[in-house]
Amino acid sequence: MNQPASRIYRVELGPRSYDIHIEAGCLPQLGHAVRQLFPDVDRCLIVSNDVVAPLYLDVVQQSLAESGWTCHSCILKDGEQYKTLTAWGEIMDALMQARLSRGEPVIALGGGVVGDMAGFAAACYRRGIPCVQVPTTLLAQVDSSVGGKTAVNHPHGKNMIGAFYQPSLVWIDPLLLGTLEPRQLRAGIAELIKYGLIRDAVFFTWLEANMDGLLALDSGIVSEVIHTSCRHKAEVVMADETEQGMRALLNLGHTFGHAIESMTRYTEYLHGEAVALGTLMAARLSAQLGYASTDVEASIRGLYARADLPLIIPQFDAGAWLDAMGHDKKNVGNRIRYILLRGMGDAFVAEQVDEAAIRRLISSFTV
Amino acid sequence: MNQPASRIYRVELGPRSYDIHIEAGCLPQLGHAVRQLFPDVDRCLIVSNDVVAPLYLDVVQQSLAESGWTCHSCILKDGEQYKTLTAWGEIMDALMQARLSRGEPVIALGGGVVGDMAGFAAACYRRGIPCVQVPTTLLAQVDSSVGGKTAVNHPHGKNMIGAFYQPSLVWIDPLLLGTLEPRQLRAGIAELIKYGLIRDAVFFTWLEANMDGLLALDSGIVSEVIHTSCRHKAEVVMADETEQGMRALLNLGHTFGHAIESMTRYTEYLHGEAVALGTLMAARLSAQLGYASTDVEASIRGLYARADLPLIIPQFDAGAWLDAMGHDKKNVGNRIRYILLRGMGDAFVAEQVDEAAIRRLISSFTV
Repeated sequence: MNQPASRIYRVELGPRSYDIHIEAGCLPQLGHAVRQLFPDVDRCLIVSNDVVAPLYLDVVQQSLAESGWTCHSCILKDGEQYKTLTAWGEIMDALMQARLSRGEPVIALGGGVVGDMAGFAAACYRRGIPCVQVPTTLLAQVDSSVGGKTAVNHPHGKNMIGAFYQPSLVWIDPLLLGTLEPRQLRAGIAELIKYGLIRDAVFFTWLEANMDGLLALDSGIVSEVIHTSCRHKAEVVMADETEQGMRALLNLGHTFGHAIESMTRYTEYLHGEAVALGTLMAARLSAQLGYASTDVEASIRGLYARADLPLIIPQFDAGAWLDAMGHDKKNVGNRIRYILLRGMGDAFVAEQVDEAAIRRLISSFTV
Repeated sequence: MNQPASRIYRVELGPRSYDIHIEAGCLPQLGHAVRQLFPDVDRCLIVSNDVVAPLYLDVVQQSLAESGWTCHSCILKDGEQYKTLTAWGEIMDALMQARLSRGEPVIALGGGVVGDMAGFAAACYRRGIPCVQVPTTLLAQVDSSVGGKTAVNHPHGKNMIGAFYQPSLVWIDPLLLGTLEPRQLRAGIAELIKYGLIRDAVFFTWLEANMDGLLALDSGIVSEVIHTSCRHKAEVVMADETEQGMRALLNLGHTFGHAIESMTRYTEYLHGEAVALGTLMAARLSAQLGYASTDVEASIRGLYARADLPLIIPQFDAGAWLDAMGHDKKNVGNRIRYILLRGMGDAFVAEQVDEAAIRRLISSFTV
């Protein structure tokens, strides 16, 4: 499964098509690439956070300046708990202050939170200006930077306010992962395991064989997982840009995971960690409803354990779970679509999961 | 120019196509129409304001309830100064509280401010739910409810935060204008005169002959102006949904008008009044640059006077004007596109208007 050092995937979406450029060490070429894409404008706004900016903002600014860009910047606080309308409003203020015109791009330099917020700001400023995604975490490089889902959280729900808004370019430098905190790396691994679970059993097996190398940031293995993930993500997004159908499969583990994030106020778990926990719940629900064998949960649990991902479901009563997942007393059960598994690499959307099944699932995790 | 009592215009935009239904007395049939459009869902959120809600919320709620809808409501303060991210956040909170699912609609019951904010909320809640526009002012019935431009204001610029997001239905009951304040009626007249100026000289002449009847809300004349305006708006939007070209002509008077609104903090002029003032400025600029005769400004001024629209340009120094229109010291003149007139019914986009021309224009209005 060896990959070339540099590769471009094209996400074909008609007038919203764009490239995913993957190349170790490509960060200093960003300015040149953005100049080629936007030959006629001068200004850009870099959105980053207070962890990433000290590491990479200088390189990015210098690269952009060398290609004739006047750079403004907006540095947010790091963390999912700051993925709010308030922080998004700060990006809007920065865009107003920088007086960006239609056609001048936002550069999102950071992980999933930065990418989602900067993308949503680009979607709404002057009713839409371009956005270039420069993902710096594994999670963002394998998942969130591709596909145009942008959003902020509402206190009562994850990603409830946002837009489908495709980037103009995704610029991925795997070397940036060298500075990533181990916990962030593991959270990203949860999202890439997802591709194995929903559509690529071979990739899951390959990950079982190569998890140690991935955790050690072996460059060949890192390259492989980014390529494979971006290929899967691009295929799914091209088939179903706005999640009318199969794209929903990418939400495996997310209905439960978002509830976990929301119930813990976005402060205890990284998104990828919550997704890992949610995926264990989805696997068990699949078994309890007779769709899959219990081996599936065991295999996932084994791989998560090797990646040192959390395995213990946080304890809330069933009412809190149902409430956080969007149930209410008048509309029980039938409004939420769960992504379940028939087996490894075989996910589907279950429309008719009743409240009793969810209560039984939750009680099976109660210690 | 007699129109049938009821008429539907279809805005053809592929998967985003929708009907504009115009019929005197159609408000109580709204519930039935919305039920036909969305047979499978139950809940909706009505967004209105504290002037319109006491007049029409009951009728709308009853109509929706009779067709099986569970109605939630969100009542905003009336006025352009409340077209803010804060008020928009209140709609988001109401949507979260009502737990609307994807597919359940927002009903915008009000004028341009309510329509723009409710539309933008629908665009972003869960990355997009349907929006039905029920315009209650002349301005909204002839212009803002059609075409999918949604937005809120930023303190430094009008409509700077928003989305192109088409409604699923526009439901126009001309009888609602019977309760409209005369000042609001006149502001709407400014926007419909615009269609005459940019693309329909015959309509301008017809308005000169029928202004008294329009101000007296003669039902035939009101029907005529709504039909003609919606036809023009639909044609322009179908030709250029996201304002890559000809749709920009609808912004005649808006570059100056938005500056007036922003400089007066959205409290002194109604949007239509500011557009009227801006249109006078655009007409004079057209003459000063040699594109049009001075007769054009005189004709417009004459018709505005009959509609009792404001005619005196507010006094700000040139720096304030240029700043409010998005100039800055480094990027002078060449970034703003002005909509100018060659003659009645003949507008065009001028890319190269320099700062000196704008300064001369402003000084020509200085008293």
